[in-house]
Amino acid sequence: MSGKPQTVKGTRDFGPVQSMKRQYIFNTIKARFENAGFSPIETPSMETLKTLTGKYGEEGDRLIFKILNSGDFKRKVDAEKWTNTEASHLIPSLCEKALRYDLTVPFARFVTMNRNDLTFPFRRYQIQPVWRADRPQKGRYREFFQCDADIIGSDSLVLEAELLSLFSQVLQDFKIPGYVIHLNNRKVLAGIAEAIGQPEDMMAMTIALDKLDKIGVDGVVKELETAGIKDIDTLKKVMAITGSNELKLTQLDAIIGQTETGAVGMQELKEVFELMQSLNVTHQEVNFNPTLARGLNYYTGAIFEVGVKEASVGSICGGGRYDDLTGIFGMPGISGIGISFGADRIYDVLEEFDLFPSSRPSKTQVLITRFEGVDVAGLLKLTQQLRNDGMATEIYPDALKPNKLKKQFQYANDNGIPYVIVAGTEEWNAGEVAVKNMETGDQAPVKIEDISSYFALANSL
Amino acid sequence: MSGKPQTVKGTRDFGPVQSMKRQYIFNTIKARFENAGFSPIETPSMETLKTLTGKYGEEGDRLIFKILNSGDFKRKVDAEKWTNTEASHLIPSLCEKALRYDLTVPFARFVTMNRNDLTFPFRRYQIQPVWRADRPQKGRYREFFQCDADIIGSDSLVLEAELLSLFSQVLQDFKIPGYVIHLNNRKVLAGIAEAIGQPEDMMAMTIALDKLDKIGVDGVVKELETAGIKDIDTLKKVMAITGSNELKLTQLDAIIGQTETGAVGMQELKEVFELMQSLNVTHQEVNFNPTLARGLNYYTGAIFEVGVKEASVGSICGGGRYDDLTGIFGMPGISGIGISFGADRIYDVLEEFDLFPSSRPSKTQVLITRFEGVDVAGLLKLTQQLRNDGMATEIYPDALKPNKLKKQFQYANDNGIPYVIVAGTEEWNAGEVAVKNMETGDQAPVKIEDISSYFALANSL
Repeated sequence: MSGKPQTVKGTRDFGPVQSMKRQYIFNTIKARFENAGFSPIETPSMETLKTLTGKYGEEGDRLIFKILNSGDFKRKVDAEKWTNTEASHLIPSLCEKALRYDLTVPFARFVTMNRNDLTFPFRRYQIQPVWRADRPQKGRYREFFQCDADIIGSDSLVLEAELLSLFSQVLQDFKIPGYVIHLNNRKVLAGIAEAIGQPEDMMAMTIALDKLDKIGVDGVVKELETAGIKDIDTLKKVMAITGSNELKLTQLDAIIGQTETGAVGMQELKEVFELMQSLNVTHQEVNFNPTLARGLNYYTGAIFEVGVKEASVGSICGGGRYDDLTGIFGMPGISGIGISFGADRIYDVLEEFDLFPSSRPSKTQVLITRFEGVDVAGLLKLTQQLRNDGMATEIYPDALKPNKLKKQFQYANDNGIPYVIVAGTEEWNAGEVAVKNMETGDQAPVKIEDISSYFALANSL
Repeated sequence: MSGKPQTVKGTRDFGPVQSMKRQYIFNTIKARFENAGFSPIETPSMETLKTLTGKYGEEGDRLIFKILNSGDFKRKVDAEKWTNTEASHLIPSLCEKALRYDLTVPFARFVTMNRNDLTFPFRRYQIQPVWRADRPQKGRYREFFQCDADIIGSDSLVLEAELLSLFSQVLQDFKIPGYVIHLNNRKVLAGIAEAIGQPEDMMAMTIALDKLDKIGVDGVVKELETAGIKDIDTLKKVMAITGSNELKLTQLDAIIGQTETGAVGMQELKEVFELMQSLNVTHQEVNFNPTLARGLNYYTGAIFEVGVKEASVGSICGGGRYDDLTGIFGMPGISGIGISFGADRIYDVLEEFDLFPSSRPSKTQVLITRFEGVDVAGLLKLTQQLRNDGMATEIYPDALKPNKLKKQFQYANDNGIPYVIVAGTEEWNAGEVAVKNMETGDQAPVKIEDISSYFALANSL
């Protein structure tokens, strides 16, 4: 007896209706990934602590869930060490393993370890949970699923266009209204830092600019000043850039067109805008956003983020190009690009806008009721026959008294089962059952020998 | 730079071919679960340590992976406590969370927490990974998938028959040769303990008998003697029981037919044998095994275990009836029954007997080659068109020189892509491409405007 049981804070149970909705999300994304030539891989939930540490910044390291060593985990830590060492510095002596924090770093490890067996460019998708020891809040969970698609081993801008198209198709499949695919390029950010004469301060500048959505121009200016950025006027111009993608590019051109890296970034953006249209991605869907950075400093080219206007959660997808992700594992100089769909936030958005296809709490199509006195062998044979016909079928397990019919109908009703077969003793002995359509309420007598063809006909209508 | 990266011992990466084989296993099992009226649920990977501790015996507690508390995990342990407390007793002060060890205990927790929202009998399936800090060895992994189906809230023996039928159908879907579904009943074991006059020693007796397969009659006898069991002769008779299920029941009847619990167990077995045949489960598939216990002491009725003759792994499925699983969480007196398919061991068996449907390393059906000088916008439009037709299509991302055709064919070949579209500059400008069938080697010129109908025809043949 453990007392009243609980789930871990920030994690969730999913009952049948929620699980089926989640399957709808995963299946939709998976179908598009496969249609675009991505193959699945899976990596373990646990990675060595060494593989994960130092890849997500200091804050990230803190948010990684560590697994206590099995057996005598005390052996590397004596009392003195325990007393005199800060908790965070004790971790490597207590834990060799940790739960993965995202799918990108495990993917880079996978590619590095399997480089001799893979054909490049390697297109993979991966749909698995990740874990973060974040403070739980709306739209932020400690266990959540990422759905990633990456191509590694090519720096072709065709891939930027392909991934924009994947975003577009999946978001349209979900019928999400008012989604916006924000696009930037790390080289544009480098160009801006060049243009203000402080290329060495690009990271600090970027971190401040990236917050424009959250803290507004005044907030960003304050942060820029604190970070020692001098040419605030130019950055105000960057933040004021507005209009169509084309207009924004023109305005930005006046600021960074003459910088070395900025010019390359502008050229890449123009090319991607051109290419994406051949894949039916429109300028209405994509928003060039010169202040977008997405924190993660492994991006080297394109940066993606998908938001939904009027939704109460933050971004639902992200991604970008990374030119040296496998470099951290000893395989330098291989360019990749990837995107990630946040399945749990997409779930929240589909709920918020009521966009899930209607779903019943069960996939069962037929319930066979069961009463005392009716030949159970015959009912089981009927169950098996319908299952073999491809109809998801249940037989009520308990032999109830005939006056308990209501209970069995209640069961069908609670589970949204569309057909109920009522096998009363007399009818059954006369070779007949009644089939009730739970939606219309119609009830019809059907000969047992005709039952398969009855449902075949009902399903074909 | 982290040095040569590694995976955690006992865990595995799955590349595309392996992942697709795994999807085949999950999809097959899932289809049968849904066909039999089971609905999906998902529970979190992490449970509170309290939920898991004490449910799997002492050995089980040791094998649970514990998650180190985030932040200042030292706060509940001073130097003195660190020094003077055994590692295993320190765990509750360092870890509040742990990784689930199986799907059954989380399911019991789920049912208890959601009892007011569920309709009983509740039929659920759950396909998720579990983690055990076992010593890795052949067929034993630290992360592996269980595929569970349970019905809770009914003690009808119809459910025993239904689950036997699920085993039978899934194993036949996989075409696994020589599988045996071993069946016993906890009440038979209780009856044997009664018959030898030591009902209080049933656990010790059961633990010894359960090892018959592994250590033989002599080994079991030695263990029985050590455990203080006196009437070894009767137990030798139990171990010597042989023949058809009917014959074995008759032989056992002579030993336990007069015991109170044993007689009930015998009666249940006879009824299950009767019922299962109406669901097309044969005596050839099912083996009554009066010494089977499967360690887990929460089974109260039927006990299942599936083995494969001549396979080099142990059991691939298990299960049984439990009359009080939710009792540990404060919801007593609700009977349930469940089975579990071990997806990773099934994988090993399908590999061993070469039973996987042939699978390509990628699901891509068409590769569009790409050369310098050929209009990329047009090629992207063609890519999009084929994808919209439902063909999984890739475009080679890099514009290669025409003499690099071989490299692109190599890519198609390595990925098992059946069709390659070659778009040379001249042909393309003349509105034509060549389509090569990689299997037959045939190459045909196709007008670009006819390409969709070309593949529609090819796929219909």
